Amino acid sequence: VANPSAIPQMIEDPAHAAAPAIILVEPQLGENIGSTARAMLNCGLLDLRLVRPRDGWPNPAAIAMASGATAVLDAVRVYDDLASAAADLHRLYATTARHRDMVKHEVTPRHLAEEIHSYAAQGARSGILFGRERTGLENDEVAACHAVVVVPLNPAFTSLNLAQAVLLITYEWYQAQAQAPPRVLTTSDSYPALQADHQAFLDRLERSLEGHGYFRTPDLRPAIWRKIVNLLNRADLTEGDIRILHGMLSAFEGRHGPRSSSED
Amino acid sequence: VANPSAIPQMIEDPAHAAAPAIILVEPQLGENIGSTARAMLNCGLLDLRLVRPRDGWPNPAAIAMASGATAVLDAVRVYDDLASAAADLHRLYATTARHRDMVKHEVTPRHLAEEIHSYAAQGARSGILFGRERTGLENDEVAACHAVVVVPLNPAFTSLNLAQAVLLITYEWYQAQAQAPPRVLTTSDSYPALQADHQAFLDRLERSLEGHGYFRTPDLRPAIWRKIVNLLNRADLTEGDIRILHGMLSAFEGRHGPRSSSED
Repeated sequence: VANPSAIPQMIEDPAHAAAPAIILVEPQLGENIGSTARAMLNCGLLDLRLVRPRDGWPNPAAIAMASGATAVLDAVRVYDDLASAAADLHRLYATTARHRDMVKHEVTPRHLAEEIHSYAAQGARSGILFGRERTGLENDEVAACHAVVVVPLNPAFTSLNLAQAVLLITYEWYQAQAQAPPRVLTTSDSYPALQADHQAFLDRLERSLEGHGYFRTPDLRPAIWRKIVNLLNRADLTEGDIRILHGMLSAFEGRHGPRSSSED
Repeated sequence: VANPSAIPQMIEDPAHAAAPAIILVEPQLGENIGSTARAMLNCGLLDLRLVRPRDGWPNPAAIAMASGATAVLDAVRVYDDLASAAADLHRLYATTARHRDMVKHEVTPRHLAEEIHSYAAQGARSGILFGRERTGLENDEVAACHAVVVVPLNPAFTSLNLAQAVLLITYEWYQAQAQAPPRVLTTSDSYPALQADHQAFLDRLERSLEGHGYFRTPDLRPAIWRKIVNLLNRADLTEGDIRILHGMLSAFEGRHGPRSSSED
């Protein structure tokens, strides 16, 4: 450990002890270390370990790219070899883009997240290894891990930079413990309105309201009109809704709508 | 449409018609347009639309940052306003980091992905709006959308750059249609071995094999040892496994193990 005094108290906290460590093996560019720190803090991770960073540590280029993620950079620990970096961990995962000639478990980032949380519930801490920007992890380093993480992506274009790979994997870890409420999807047998038809109704409504002297105070008009646009969008209008609204507007204007039915 | 001739045939393909369009509203940096194209192609998306890009289009800085995602950049369409960019879409989603003083549905990227696929099954296409790097989307632009997408992140540090936000949201869209096989998590009532204990056994095994003349061909030794390290890691060894392995090794060496029990 090059700077043991930098180990933050929060790493000792039981909540953080359950979070995985991110281990960059021989990272080449300080910029990528900084972007990695930013992605980690986005996802509530604080434990960043570097094995033989090419340009040493600390690295000013990392600080410039971290966008304020100093809580991570200040706590970075540097190691001479992977075994030292991983000694206090129980589970190791290797990230790799190319297929290796090895018999190995492969997990998706989502299932990795579940696995890390599951082991953490038993008190076992995990580390996730990321290799060199150009060449990735060596076969011996992959062999030293319990499983390999592969991000499912467009098979024709799987190129991710280091910080993007860290972001996707730590994002999944955060989602697995976040309790963000999903939106309830309301289904309908009608068809969503086409934007062009929706906008045509809005244009007609605005002209009609203007013709009827609805907008009395010019200063308030933009805010009031925005509220009307917004409430109509919250309604998730269908094709049928647009026809009904046109019919209603025709009725208010004292003439028949475009169709024969009085309520259409 | 500034360059209608650039509309690729693949957009007309039913499979791609189900994919959302990505709409960047007044993007400032060409680098971010390039990174966005890269993230989109990673996730199998091809339909990128720009509303009033600050530095015009095409933009050499975008090409430099796209890392070969030319299928997306070649098909970019540029518009003078959001309404034109969205006219052929049915559903619009706004991405925003800060809370707005609006009554609005909020969805997570994961549920957005499910919603987009659900609407696509009815033939309705979606567009996802991303705002200016510095100031995001304007309130009128958010009002024009059916819902807002909020990425659940560490509330103390939610800062994402444009391409990272695109990556997380398009990643979720790809996952919702990818059939990547998850790993089955095998549970056990034993405790995973600590790396330090695991490594100590490996070191003892290697010395013991060497002492017994196991490594006969020096050239083959690294590959054979790697296979041994790898197979032992595939076994997901527990604390108890390590004790058993030490006991087995002691038996082969013709002496008792560190514990009293003969099989320990």
